[in-house]
Amino acid sequence: MATLCKPAVSVPEHVITMEETLELARSRHPDHPQLPLALRLIENTGVHTRHIVQPIEETLKHPGFEERNHVYEAEAKARVPAVVQRALDEAELLTTDIDVIIYVSCTGFMMPSLTAYLINSMDFSSDTRQIPIAQLGCAAGGSAINRAHDFCTAYPQANALIVACEFCSLCYQPTDLGVGSLLSNGLFGDGIAAAAVRGKGGTGITLERNASYLIPKTDEWISYDVRATGFHFLLDKRVPGTMEPLAPALQELASQHGWDASDLDFYIIHAGGPRILDDLSKFLRVPPEAFRFSRATLTEYGNIASAVVLDALRRLFDEGGAEHAARGMLAGFGPGITAEMSLGRWHRTDEA
Amino acid sequence: MATLCKPAVSVPEHVITMEETLELARSRHPDHPQLPLALRLIENTGVHTRHIVQPIEETLKHPGFEERNHVYEAEAKARVPAVVQRALDEAELLTTDIDVIIYVSCTGFMMPSLTAYLINSMDFSSDTRQIPIAQLGCAAGGSAINRAHDFCTAYPQANALIVACEFCSLCYQPTDLGVGSLLSNGLFGDGIAAAAVRGKGGTGITLERNASYLIPKTDEWISYDVRATGFHFLLDKRVPGTMEPLAPALQELASQHGWDASDLDFYIIHAGGPRILDDLSKFLRVPPEAFRFSRATLTEYGNIASAVVLDALRRLFDEGGAEHAARGMLAGFGPGITAEMSLGRWHRTDEA
Repeated sequence: MATLCKPAVSVPEHVITMEETLELARSRHPDHPQLPLALRLIENTGVHTRHIVQPIEETLKHPGFEERNHVYEAEAKARVPAVVQRALDEAELLTTDIDVIIYVSCTGFMMPSLTAYLINSMDFSSDTRQIPIAQLGCAAGGSAINRAHDFCTAYPQANALIVACEFCSLCYQPTDLGVGSLLSNGLFGDGIAAAAVRGKGGTGITLERNASYLIPKTDEWISYDVRATGFHFLLDKRVPGTMEPLAPALQELASQHGWDASDLDFYIIHAGGPRILDDLSKFLRVPPEAFRFSRATLTEYGNIASAVVLDALRRLFDEGGAEHAARGMLAGFGPGITAEMSLGRWHRTDEA
Repeated sequence: MATLCKPAVSVPEHVITMEETLELARSRHPDHPQLPLALRLIENTGVHTRHIVQPIEETLKHPGFEERNHVYEAEAKARVPAVVQRALDEAELLTTDIDVIIYVSCTGFMMPSLTAYLINSMDFSSDTRQIPIAQLGCAAGGSAINRAHDFCTAYPQANALIVACEFCSLCYQPTDLGVGSLLSNGLFGDGIAAAAVRGKGGTGITLERNASYLIPKTDEWISYDVRATGFHFLLDKRVPGTMEPLAPALQELASQHGWDASDLDFYIIHAGGPRILDDLSKFLRVPPEAFRFSRATLTEYGNIASAVVLDALRRLFDEGGAEHAARGMLAGFGPGITAEMSLGRWHRTDEA
C-alpha cells in the first residue's frame, strides 16, 4: 500500500500582512473604480499573512520575465533541497531509495526541470524517473499525490518523492488591473512542500483510490495568458462557484469506494479561497471544522497553489494525525477546471 | 500487458528543403565567422526536408513571445484532434475508453494544458486523467510511453493516450547566432504524433520494462533560456557525444531483462541528430540498418523532438511490423541529459 508520509513545508522569510496588502491596494490604485469591491474581496479571503520570496519592494517591481525566471530558478535551487531532505527524513528514506520525483510548479519554467538539479545536487540515483508538471496549477498538488499513488501501485516496492515549489509572487503583474487580478494579488502566497510516498511502510495516509474530474467547458475560467512579461493569471469570477459541480464528483469517488463523502474522518482540501471551503463544506454536508487544516494554511500562508494540500496535510500530522484506519479524502482543484481527488486511511506503523 | 499501438503522425504542409536551409543560412549570416562550420554541420544532419507550421517567411519573423504562443495554441487546437482520432482508430478505441492523456510538448506553453481542450472538444470522459509534461524536451516521447506503461501496469484494464505536439519552428530565435543555434535552425522540424497504449488487446509493442537514466552533471548541456522573446534553445557541443555514456544504460536495462541490447529485433531510437544514431549504433554494436526508422524520420522531417520516437515507430508498423514476440527497444533522449528507455515485444493480436 502506498503511504503518503509527513510533508515538509517551508515558506519564505518575507512576510506581508492583510493590513499591508489592503494599504498597498489603496495606495497603488486610488482611482480604480472597483477599488472598494477589490478591498472587500481581499478582506474576505481571511488571509492574515503571506510569505514571499523577495521583499515586497522587489516583488512590486517587474524586472522582466527573464529576470523573474532567473529569480525563480535561483530561489528554487537555494530553497528546495532542504525541504526535500526534511521530507525524506520524515519518511525515513534516503535519496537513493527514491524511484521517481514528481515536481509540480506553475510559477516559473525551467528546462531541464528542477528534477535534474535535485538528482545531481542531492545524489539521487541516476535512474530516478522525473515527472515535471507545470500546467495543472493549483490542482498539481493533488495530481502529484495521485501519480505517486499510481506509480507505487504499478511498482509496490517503489518510493516516490513529491515536490511542490510555488513562488506566486513572481507572477505579480503590475499592469493587470481587473478585479480578479487585484484579488489574486491579495490571495496568493509562496511556499515549498515535499513529501514521500512509500510503497512499503511509513506512517501517514495509505492511498486507496484516486480520480480526476474536469468540469466540462470551463477551460477558460482559470488560465495563464503567456506574454513577454511572463505568465498573466486570469481568474474568472465564476471560479468560486465551482464546488457545486465538483462536490458530486467527490461524492461519487467516495461512493465507488463504499464510503460516504459526508462522513469521513479527515479532509485535506485545496484552499483556493474561503468560498471554496465554505461551499464544499455545505455541498458535502460536513462541518466547517473538518476543513480546519486547509483554513489554517489559507489564513497563515495564503493560497500557495499546488503546495496547499501538502501544507494542510502537514497540519493534520502536527495535530497528532488520526486514529489508525481513519478514513479521509484529499483534493486539489485548479485549471481545467480540474479536481484531483484521492481517498485513503490513516496508517500508524505501530498498529499495522 | 500494456500494448503500444500504431501511432498516427502528421506534419504541417509547409516544407523547407536542405538546399533552402543552407541558402537561408548563407543569405542571413554572410559575415558570420563560423558560417562554413555551420553549413557543414547542417549538411551533415542529413535532413532533406522539414515541415513547418507556418510559411518560412512567417517563421523567420519574431512577432513576440505572446503572438508565437498564440500561434502555438491555435495550431495545436486546429491540428491535434485529427491526429488523436486517427491514433484512437488505429487502436480501435473510443475517446471514452481512454483513462489518461499524457500530453508532451516543449515548444509552447498553455495553462490549462491542451489536455483540457481535447477532453472538452473530443468528448473524452470528464474523469480522464491529465499528465501534461513540458520540461523533458525530446526525451518526453520516451517518457510518455513509459508513464503510459506504468499507468497500465497499475490499472491493467486502463487505456492511455499519448500525444506529442512539437512546433520547433515557433522557437526560432533570429538573434541567437552561436553555431549551436545555427545548427538547430537547420535540424529541428515540426510534427504531431499520437498513440494509444491499451491495457488489454491491441497490435503493437507489449511494453515489458522501462527505465530512466540521467547522465550526472550534464543539466546545462541542453536547456532553455527563458526570456521575454520566449524559449531560447541552448545546445552544448558535447551533446552529440552523449551516446558513449548512455549506451551502457541501455545495455544495463536489456541485461536486467535477460536480453542483449546488441541483439534485438527492432530499435526505435530518438533521432536527435546523425551522430546520435551513428554513435549508438557503434556503442551498442548494432548495424546502422537497425536504426532505419529513426534515420528516415530525421531525413524526411528533421528532429521533431518528442514526436520522433512515435514517428519512427509508425514507420516500423508501415514496414509490416515484426514477427510475433520479436524483441525491441525504444529510447528517447533529451535535456537532463535524460534517457527514457523501454523494452517490449511485438505483439500480433491474431497470434496472441
